[in-house]
Amino acid sequence: MQLTLHTDFALRVLIFLSQKREGLATITEIADFYQISRNHLVKVVHHLAGSGFIKTTRGKHGGMELARVPELISIGDVVRHMEPNFDIVECFDTSNPSCVVSPACALKSVLYQAGNEFLGVLDRFTLADALEPSEATSQIFPLEQLLNR
Amino acid sequence: MQLTLHTDFALRVLIFLSQKREGLATITEIADFYQISRNHLVKVVHHLAGSGFIKTTRGKHGGMELARVPELISIGDVVRHMEPNFDIVECFDTSNPSCVVSPACALKSVLYQAGNEFLGVLDRFTLADALEPSEATSQIFPLEQLLNR
Repeated sequence: MQLTLHTDFALRVLIFLSQKREGLATITEIADFYQISRNHLVKVVHHLAGSGFIKTTRGKHGGMELARVPELISIGDVVRHMEPNFDIVECFDTSNPSCVVSPACALKSVLYQAGNEFLGVLDRFTLADALEPSEATSQIFPLEQLLNR
Repeated sequence: MQLTLHTDFALRVLIFLSQKREGLATITEIADFYQISRNHLVKVVHHLAGSGFIKTTRGKHGGMELARVPELISIGDVVRHMEPNFDIVECFDTSNPSCVVSPACALKSVLYQAGNEFLGVLDRFTLADALEPSEATSQIFPLEQLLNR
């Protein structure tokens, strides 16, 4: 059971932006920081901007920033926007119903309930919550320090 | 967010076996019924047998059957056994911690809670529940009739 790398990267971009002290961030800066594909990041940033989570500014000194404070960015909302679908198994894709028993099978409803519960948990947290590590880890490795070294 | 095709096929095999009226089922029979890859099904059946969900008998008249009644096969248990991992995002894989902020990031704990909730819902249902379609669908397309035509 996995989220896509696209969603994973989107969450990392938002975490980076929420800790950036001043100015706009660039794709190159974020790709270098996380050591991840710049090309993939271009698509992620485009999607995040289109979904209203970040604001981008063009030009020589352009870049991106969060569209609102981390306390107002729901993790559930980000995951819902970034995942291409929530087709937990093949029969969720109603445009391509290939399983012969799907019209009479109640498993889909069970998996649907489970998927809803998954998203329900994420809805209870915001980006600000993702930035609050336990006391133990924050003493060893403060996120803010890491992102602004 | 998806389960693997391996888990999807495993659930289909169990549904087929739970509706098989008499005798043992063969891989060819199940592959033909669902129109899915026989080779993939061989691996799925091997995994299901190794995990104690089905019993297999070798020989000319061999085949497979459920190891216990559908009421005693938990959907959560099947999904836990069949999924290769529950690494919702990359940093769940502790053998390969590639995200630079992971020691200070609380997102993993949020996603972990959501994944647990997903499996918790599945734990509340058995294979027998997956065989109980709504009144509406069962009237149109009874599963038992479909599987024994």
